[in-house]
Amino acid sequence: MEMSRLKIKKQLLEQEKVSYAMDHLELPEGGIDCSEGCNPYGFPPECAEVFRGFDTSRLGPYPHSQALYEAIHDLWADQIDVERDNILLTDGSMSALYIINNIFDTHNAVVLGISPQFTDYYMHAEMIGIEYAPYQLNKSNNYKFDVLEFLNMHYKEAGGDEVLLPTTGKSYNFIYIDNPNNPTGQCIDIADIERIVEEAVRYNITVIIDEAYGDFMPKENSAVQLFAKYPNLAVVRTMSKGYGLAGMRVGYIIAHKNLIGYMNKMTNPYMVGELSREVAAAAIRCPEFVSQCREDFRVMKTRIKDVLGCDEDHPAGASGNLHIAETLDTNSICLLYHDDPEVNLKEEFFRRGVLVIDGYDFKGLDSSAARVRMPKLDEFPVLIQAISEISRI
Amino acid sequence: MEMSRLKIKKQLLEQEKVSYAMDHLELPEGGIDCSEGCNPYGFPPECAEVFRGFDTSRLGPYPHSQALYEAIHDLWADQIDVERDNILLTDGSMSALYIINNIFDTHNAVVLGISPQFTDYYMHAEMIGIEYAPYQLNKSNNYKFDVLEFLNMHYKEAGGDEVLLPTTGKSYNFIYIDNPNNPTGQCIDIADIERIVEEAVRYNITVIIDEAYGDFMPKENSAVQLFAKYPNLAVVRTMSKGYGLAGMRVGYIIAHKNLIGYMNKMTNPYMVGELSREVAAAAIRCPEFVSQCREDFRVMKTRIKDVLGCDEDHPAGASGNLHIAETLDTNSICLLYHDDPEVNLKEEFFRRGVLVIDGYDFKGLDSSAARVRMPKLDEFPVLIQAISEISRI
Repeated sequence: MEMSRLKIKKQLLEQEKVSYAMDHLELPEGGIDCSEGCNPYGFPPECAEVFRGFDTSRLGPYPHSQALYEAIHDLWADQIDVERDNILLTDGSMSALYIINNIFDTHNAVVLGISPQFTDYYMHAEMIGIEYAPYQLNKSNNYKFDVLEFLNMHYKEAGGDEVLLPTTGKSYNFIYIDNPNNPTGQCIDIADIERIVEEAVRYNITVIIDEAYGDFMPKENSAVQLFAKYPNLAVVRTMSKGYGLAGMRVGYIIAHKNLIGYMNKMTNPYMVGELSREVAAAAIRCPEFVSQCREDFRVMKTRIKDVLGCDEDHPAGASGNLHIAETLDTNSICLLYHDDPEVNLKEEFFRRGVLVIDGYDFKGLDSSAARVRMPKLDEFPVLIQAISEISRI
Repeated sequence: MEMSRLKIKKQLLEQEKVSYAMDHLELPEGGIDCSEGCNPYGFPPECAEVFRGFDTSRLGPYPHSQALYEAIHDLWADQIDVERDNILLTDGSMSALYIINNIFDTHNAVVLGISPQFTDYYMHAEMIGIEYAPYQLNKSNNYKFDVLEFLNMHYKEAGGDEVLLPTTGKSYNFIYIDNPNNPTGQCIDIADIERIVEEAVRYNITVIIDEAYGDFMPKENSAVQLFAKYPNLAVVRTMSKGYGLAGMRVGYIIAHKNLIGYMNKMTNPYMVGELSREVAAAAIRCPEFVSQCREDFRVMKTRIKDVLGCDEDHPAGASGNLHIAETLDTNSICLLYHDDPEVNLKEEFFRRGVLVIDGYDFKGLDSSAARVRMPKLDEFPVLIQAISEISRI
């Protein structure tokens, strides 16, 4: 039987999927893992205590715990009031993105993104029939996001009259921005984010701000503070990165209650298990854990920039053939790229005991680039040695 | 700002959602819960041991455990070889259904279902723009499924020439059957299931068999044994009912690897957390736990049928005004219905200390019916007393 006869979406039948999410980790022997976005330091020790003290009989009934809603409320309370109906819990933030994509009419739908960015997001969009039209970060500008260029490009393309329209003539349904950006780790200023959301609301465009790495930027830079003001804004967060609970699968969306209401219609109140809710709630109440991680990453990134010869005039580094894209030092990830387009950066790192993500797995990049997630400080010598060597090939 | 301007799917904007999935449980004081489909006996004690012995450092990285794939393989090994690429792990079986619905082209899509059946399934289908065309179980036949009627209805409607077409003239994309059926708890014989799948394959229709309550029927009646023979078959299972792990959110799909491949394109390998995989794997290796539950349910159902006066000539019961729809005695759930259409069965049960699911929450039923899940044997006196009283009003 031909599977294509089963009335399956034609994108699923025709299109290959690119993803760097791995079923198995192939760590080089005795090497270090700088690939997956999870936190090398694990999670706050308080989480293990909650785990140990958990009454296992609660694994039986459907999850009803409100602890995580309360912890999320308290986390943002100094900025904004996040009520129960502003929150949708999800099975990691990837599931959050799937849910958001699915609430839009896919007929003639277009999402404006930034390239490179989180691959699994736009892959899902394309698989369900949404056209992905990314704004390309310029290598010549060290992949730094430029808000004016981002906005102006789309004014111009539509002839200055109707704005935010791609060349296809289709109108954007929504904008997807990961902030901080994945893979570069750079952070877009909240003022620029607000400008984009403000523009978008005039044209009935929903803006998704994916803050998967958001715990590594100052809390004041989060778009969460804007959700009440802009009904077209959905902010996605995860417990997998900053709070280090990737193995528990916890994410959440914060948005206007109407927008959350539409999402609720396509999902159920049992997203995120009972234990995961309790452990994640405990993690959120340990912000000092994330602060310490940020500080360690800053130390490592500073050292990398030093080795690569980065300075004000050469933000990408000028001491060798390896460069670092615009990045936020306190963030766990960064993008490295090599002058020689023939160099396979992932292979070069692997040979030196470091597992990284191939740039090829991101739109707009190739294998001469790689995403590197900071390891623990005591594993850092392996990474910096590899960087130093690769910079000279 | 009008939310309708945000290019959200029109079904989401217009349609109300019906669901019996609850954020909070409102148990009558001192009463018993016979509402949610979770297992009143919890889960196998071995699960708690796995929980206690779990190395918490594994909660940090993304889930990579293969334990659950192996346990699923071993569970079915006496019937069929279920390989890694025949399995998709999902965040409970509800997420499995969302994923399956999403792989189909929704343009002009129709799903043939059975009414009443699992409400959240067809609600999701409708919300994403799939037309739901159910075959109605007949009250006059005590809601018993009739495979010939099911198949013939659709032959006839199309004029005997083109088969399996609804009156709309649109062709079915897929068929959704929950077996055992929710809410009645009845079990469709595997021979009838195979007939349906066989018919469907000729017309390029995918068949979803949702075996959420499948652990309460004999394993030999599972459609899992058919998946290699029929590339148009997807079998959905959950760890929430028989194995009692609703709080951990574990479900899975078994299907031909091509079909699983399409689903994988829209999801990621991190579905189901690391701990949930280990605990669920341990549960699967304790089939005797489920056998004991089945035996207890059989005792309770037999007693209910006795009180309602069920016999060969009166399968629904003839001793009072309360009746029981066709059901499998070893299954945890059943559908009760009252002769008086004005009776609100959920309220009558609540008044007597029993929380049940309102029949109104199922298509084709009203509030004079209710779904009742068996409690633990030691709580059964409260239920049987309520049944006995309500039968006389």
